[in-house]
Amino acid sequence: MEYIESPKNDHIKQAKKLTTKKYQKQTGEYLLDGWHLVQEALASGQTPKRIYATEKFINERDLKPFYDQVTEISPEVAKSLSDTPTPQGIFAIMPLRAQKLPNKLSGQFLLLDGIQDPGNVGTLVRTADAAGVQTVVFGNGTADAFGPKVLRAMQGSQFHLNIVTAKLADVVKGLQAADIPVFGTELNPDAVPYQSVDAQTQFGLIVGNEGNGMQQALLEATDANLYIPIKGEAESLNVAIAAAVVMFHLVGA
Amino acid sequence: MEYIESPKNDHIKQAKKLTTKKYQKQTGEYLLDGWHLVQEALASGQTPKRIYATEKFINERDLKPFYDQVTEISPEVAKSLSDTPTPQGIFAIMPLRAQKLPNKLSGQFLLLDGIQDPGNVGTLVRTADAAGVQTVVFGNGTADAFGPKVLRAMQGSQFHLNIVTAKLADVVKGLQAADIPVFGTELNPDAVPYQSVDAQTQFGLIVGNEGNGMQQALLEATDANLYIPIKGEAESLNVAIAAAVVMFHLVGA
Repeated sequence: MEYIESPKNDHIKQAKKLTTKKYQKQTGEYLLDGWHLVQEALASGQTPKRIYATEKFINERDLKPFYDQVTEISPEVAKSLSDTPTPQGIFAIMPLRAQKLPNKLSGQFLLLDGIQDPGNVGTLVRTADAAGVQTVVFGNGTADAFGPKVLRAMQGSQFHLNIVTAKLADVVKGLQAADIPVFGTELNPDAVPYQSVDAQTQFGLIVGNEGNGMQQALLEATDANLYIPIKGEAESLNVAIAAAVVMFHLVGA
Repeated sequence: MEYIESPKNDHIKQAKKLTTKKYQKQTGEYLLDGWHLVQEALASGQTPKRIYATEKFINERDLKPFYDQVTEISPEVAKSLSDTPTPQGIFAIMPLRAQKLPNKLSGQFLLLDGIQDPGNVGTLVRTADAAGVQTVVFGNGTADAFGPKVLRAMQGSQFHLNIVTAKLADVVKGLQAADIPVFGTELNPDAVPYQSVDAQTQFGLIVGNEGNGMQQALLEATDANLYIPIKGEAESLNVAIAAAVVMFHLVGA
């Protein structure tokens, strides 16, 4: 098994670059950090292009079936590859599966309109996964799906549902053409309380930017805009929290 | 107006210590960072013991009514007081209001059983505030309510609802003695789907540690334990997300 000791090794420098959107696009690859995420990748049936693991990991975990893909790395290399201060010591280079919306849209969709915080983006995808939503559409201005912080919050949900980058205005039109109702969200009592809409087998739900909410043009294109009545004195809810409350209501019991 | 230029000034060193639980206890004070939080404090009618603000803040915001409380600080002092890389430049030392549960319990309670992540704790309190829950009880092992990260995620909700530190087993007994139903949460299909419980005018809802969930003894002391059916392949939900879904269901339309 190959062993890499120095963070200055070219393969390691390449792998580190896979945390940025630019190199992900160039190479069609991204980098996973940590055992839970690597496990999810392996369980999904996707083959890592390479696994980098410290000796401790190679000994303690059963990586034998992937022996040809594994390169041993020093703890120093692990530190240089991770954006966390105490990395576990296992990484995988994964193929970026280019995903597109099918021509015939069906099911439940979450649309992200300019969600900037990577933790929010990852939590939104994880929550959509738990709610059984099949597709998350990343609109303009939304944090890159395969950056380290998003991956950490997403907890492997990219292996369970479709993640698509698309122009949200087009997706809204496509959903409506397929008779799938599209709901926006806004912090505005002129909108409809979310509880007044029944559970839906098919829907598109749009959530908007942390500070500015959804784009006006999208708010005007939806079938209805929903809000969560605030009962206390909080000014607003975190966007991932708000999306969770509405999504679980829409998917129903 | 007094001006402090050096981060080594004794008052500044004292103020910085107020971000730790130990000094909060000793002094009965804590430190707010940022205009939104200071605004919430002022709007609540609580008087800051001192406001530290950079020249920019003093000129741009109307701090005149609080002139006697304001000390001007240099940008270097602002940097040293904040745990964010680019602080806004305004801080307030606030009194820690010691809050206790009343003898006669009533209303809606959120109980935190060992929630470790400060962002989760703050988001839970903010969400409880939005849902109209009146009291959040911090149990053993839960992150300190007045540390910088919790304060940031809480967004000022500590001024809107009661934050109490107490032994959860005692609170559960007290709630049940007052005929208030207590619900636990667990990731276990043996529990009851949350949708099968109706909205409640009074309740206690317990959420547990990110990794280990609620203490077994508490799970056994509740009236019922609820779970959120997972429809996709996600293993679990973030604790603040799960609490939000159940809380908004329990408070009802």
